[in-house]
Amino acid sequence: MARGGLGRVALLGTGLIGGSFAAALKRHGLASHIVAYSAGDAHAALALGLVDEVAEAPEAAVAGCDTVVLAAPVSVNADLLARIAPALAAGVLITDVSSVKRAVVDAARRHLGAALPGYVPSHPIAGSERSGPQAADAALFRNRTVILSPLDESEPSKAARLESVWQRLGATVVRLSPQEHDRIYALVSHWPHALGFALGAAVAGNGVADDLVGPGLLDLTRTAASSPALWADILLQNGGPALDAADLVAEELAHIRAAIRDGDRESLIALFSRAAAWRGRFG
Amino acid sequence: MARGGLGRVALLGTGLIGGSFAAALKRHGLASHIVAYSAGDAHAALALGLVDEVAEAPEAAVAGCDTVVLAAPVSVNADLLARIAPALAAGVLITDVSSVKRAVVDAARRHLGAALPGYVPSHPIAGSERSGPQAADAALFRNRTVILSPLDESEPSKAARLESVWQRLGATVVRLSPQEHDRIYALVSHWPHALGFALGAAVAGNGVADDLVGPGLLDLTRTAASSPALWADILLQNGGPALDAADLVAEELAHIRAAIRDGDRESLIALFSRAAAWRGRFG
Repeated sequence: MARGGLGRVALLGTGLIGGSFAAALKRHGLASHIVAYSAGDAHAALALGLVDEVAEAPEAAVAGCDTVVLAAPVSVNADLLARIAPALAAGVLITDVSSVKRAVVDAARRHLGAALPGYVPSHPIAGSERSGPQAADAALFRNRTVILSPLDESEPSKAARLESVWQRLGATVVRLSPQEHDRIYALVSHWPHALGFALGAAVAGNGVADDLVGPGLLDLTRTAASSPALWADILLQNGGPALDAADLVAEELAHIRAAIRDGDRESLIALFSRAAAWRGRFG
Repeated sequence: MARGGLGRVALLGTGLIGGSFAAALKRHGLASHIVAYSAGDAHAALALGLVDEVAEAPEAAVAGCDTVVLAAPVSVNADLLARIAPALAAGVLITDVSSVKRAVVDAARRHLGAALPGYVPSHPIAGSERSGPQAADAALFRNRTVILSPLDESEPSKAARLESVWQRLGATVVRLSPQEHDRIYALVSHWPHALGFALGAAVAGNGVADDLVGPGLLDLTRTAASSPALWADILLQNGGPALDAADLVAEELAHIRAAIRDGDRESLIALFSRAAAWRGRFG
């Protein structure tokens, strides 16, 4: 294993993100052994060569591991923390890859006890409308941002080690507090997914023939092909910030509606130009 | 020129769609000569080899032409019809490529007189967030849908000729009445663009660092990089149907908000699954 790696890794959750993380650690020699547990697809991940071993329970997976990675849906990650706490080895580094931090951080504070300083939350800003270990990609984190949200209690050396691992997988690491993370991602990811689902549902419910749909709508609804259960979970776990983000978008929509109703071309162009100037920065 | 082509063509408007149509007609030998008029970029289109000649006024452009193509913004197309009507040759085929049909159809009925049966509205469901003749692409209409909206007054032989030309450019032609066209495209294109602009404006207005933005938001806001003036024009011209479409999307958003507030996971999953099943059909 390369220096500064994660040693023996327990991977709890073997979907797109967990599977891709395992594949990336192996490609870069950053794990000596990966033992997976998942309620669903750990055996598929083993068959795909993403992990080395499957455990039949999360407690068994984490026993003797240097690192534990929680990569199940966010509410499951919170529950898993309670289950694995008694089985953790001393000095273990624990991270999660959840899209919402509050519930997992709360569960960590409640359950980890002496192991809490070993917990450093992560959130890779990567993904796809595909899911499952079959969609795993060792290059998923290259040229992507990973948010690291160390707690006040987190050991700086563990945060530094995890930061270095993400960087060696090709990611740029940005540090945000868990609260700031949840506020920002409600606006740039969680509520936007709700918008995509709402738009898809509105079109689906109004009998539009498929061949009338153009490329713009397909871009706007690409996220609507994502896992319904996963996104329901994320929006419920980040409910407060998601509804705040909904209000911010609703305010802009109300301006657009009023401008259309009033024939106010100047206001429409001003609002659209603000959006276009922002979006134009990304190509 | 190939049989069944458009002969001498006047192209009024030389942006992305007009320029691409000119390039495609030339590539397929479906125009003998293309004379362009535009308030802005006709000379650029000439320099790019998209058209053969530039006229300094729309009346001069259409004189002696077999076909007139209105490819300016929708409100300009309506105004152009009034200007060119007296200068049209007998038997001319007139089409437009506007994203909204009502205003152009109303102007045609008001101004074309004896030339009205030669008018057959078109709307190619193609485009890009880029604009201008520099973005023109002779292959833009390949594997795309083109809506043909003949009026009750339109000559069937002219509609058939235009349909055949679009098909020879690689498009699939679907016929819809102008009213049905405007209702459907409010829902699948016009209001969705407003959603993309609103989302972009909300993120732009809340100081989110660029490197925190993930691929999902970039998909959802790709259309927000489109021309603000063009989309303000489209939404104002199709205001009634756009606001009706806004209501349909708002209804789904209200369900999502209520479900988040009430912790109603089943409702969220049901709504998201309807959207995902629809979107999954497109890949």
